[in-house]
Amino acid sequence: MKTLHIIKIGGNVIDNSENLYHFLKDFTALQGYKILVHGGGKVATQLSETLGIETKLVDGRRITDIETLRVVTMVYGGLINKNIVAQLQRFGTNAIGLTGADGNFIRTKKRPVKTIDYGFVGDIDQKSVDSTGIAKLMDAGFTPVFSALTHDGDGQMLNTNADTIASALAVALSAKFETTLIYCFEKKGVLMDINDDDSIIRDIDPVRYEELKKQQIIHSGMLPKLDNAFTAIACGVKAVVIGHSADLGELKNSKPFGTRLSKTT
Amino acid sequence: MKTLHIIKIGGNVIDNSENLYHFLKDFTALQGYKILVHGGGKVATQLSETLGIETKLVDGRRITDIETLRVVTMVYGGLINKNIVAQLQRFGTNAIGLTGADGNFIRTKKRPVKTIDYGFVGDIDQKSVDSTGIAKLMDAGFTPVFSALTHDGDGQMLNTNADTIASALAVALSAKFETTLIYCFEKKGVLMDINDDDSIIRDIDPVRYEELKKQQIIHSGMLPKLDNAFTAIACGVKAVVIGHSADLGELKNSKPFGTRLSKTT
Repeated sequence: MKTLHIIKIGGNVIDNSENLYHFLKDFTALQGYKILVHGGGKVATQLSETLGIETKLVDGRRITDIETLRVVTMVYGGLINKNIVAQLQRFGTNAIGLTGADGNFIRTKKRPVKTIDYGFVGDIDQKSVDSTGIAKLMDAGFTPVFSALTHDGDGQMLNTNADTIASALAVALSAKFETTLIYCFEKKGVLMDINDDDSIIRDIDPVRYEELKKQQIIHSGMLPKLDNAFTAIACGVKAVVIGHSADLGELKNSKPFGTRLSKTT
Repeated sequence: MKTLHIIKIGGNVIDNSENLYHFLKDFTALQGYKILVHGGGKVATQLSETLGIETKLVDGRRITDIETLRVVTMVYGGLINKNIVAQLQRFGTNAIGLTGADGNFIRTKKRPVKTIDYGFVGDIDQKSVDSTGIAKLMDAGFTPVFSALTHDGDGQMLNTNADTIASALAVALSAKFETTLIYCFEKKGVLMDINDDDSIIRDIDPVRYEELKKQQIIHSGMLPKLDNAFTAIACGVKAVVIGHSADLGELKNSKPFGTRLSKTT
């Protein structure tokens, strides 16, 4: 089975041009099939402010009204995506920038209005990702770069969480590739001691995960991230790695990088 | 040889949601390989105004400073491109939205500064278009939708005229496809009488073109458009058609549409 790396980057890479430069260079050096997924960083919030569009958050989640959708379609799908693609081309990665609308690759359903109306937000389900189409694009020699946007198949763009997109892509493509999902975040990995950046736990399997939770070494903020990771692994993803983008270069030297979650260590 | 239609739309289609809807439906009904190229319309100018970015024109040409480049990358590459793609998907066209950076398909050179600094504008030359890569994407089952943006291969996005992109694509792809280039504009075609919308001249070859110029039937504004069209034909494009987007549906009924320019009528 061919190997595939799916790497998700967020604000701490996108908003820092030096981090982004080094990350894209390291991404280019990675062998085999690969997909990049990026979120939005601060730019969308800044543009909204300049345009006088109020950013509404409910429980930390952004409400995407029609004006906000316009902003994120411009910023995620245009500005950030195309600048990443242009830089990847400079390094020699034959990138194609995408939303879920392109190639009909990720089709979602607008989140139903219950107590809260999240607006133009798309929820991914098991049938959302067209893994055959994406594989076809990669087999034609292109490296997909997904922004955090999808569509409903009926002409409507939708805002969709980049972590969720990365995870859904990994699960769907696991049927065709030996898939590793990598989340770049602000720490070097899951830490034994939150105050010691070098206390990285290198490997976690489900048994060790239960132990770490009992010992309260894994703190509450990390729990949803790790729960989702183990769900992806249960659905066929070979491993989920959580680490800092600056260390990605270690991967090509087969050195340990971040924290690796998998079925068995 | 397989047939290919390359269709360019501008403001009068993009800025009018009803025109756009019908055009995209008719575009979907077209058989064979096809590529859509779109400009920017009024949205970029409006956004620039809202953001307090001055639109500078020299001889009708927009100066693209770094702020304006950000705006057009957002509007052309994000907002307009992705909304067109999402609507095409609704109608069943498997579109992928692109800039020249994506797939490294159109690589240009930043216009040299002489008396005027046009800023981040890319000039196309004969080597700019990677026809092999674009053909590969189409053979994989995707319909390219190009916005009016290219890159320099060194990480820099550049603003590039949509008419020129359409023409360069047509010339480059003529080696592989029997290519017809269609420009949608505000008239039904080249008119014998500017005041009579039904006085469409159906066919023009180089001999007839010279006659029409001598008789001063073709007015000055049309000359550069038609000169460029005949240059494209001399470089291998089978025909260039100029007409109104609303009449595109006639093509699939093999009825006459607009004015057809070709080597021989």
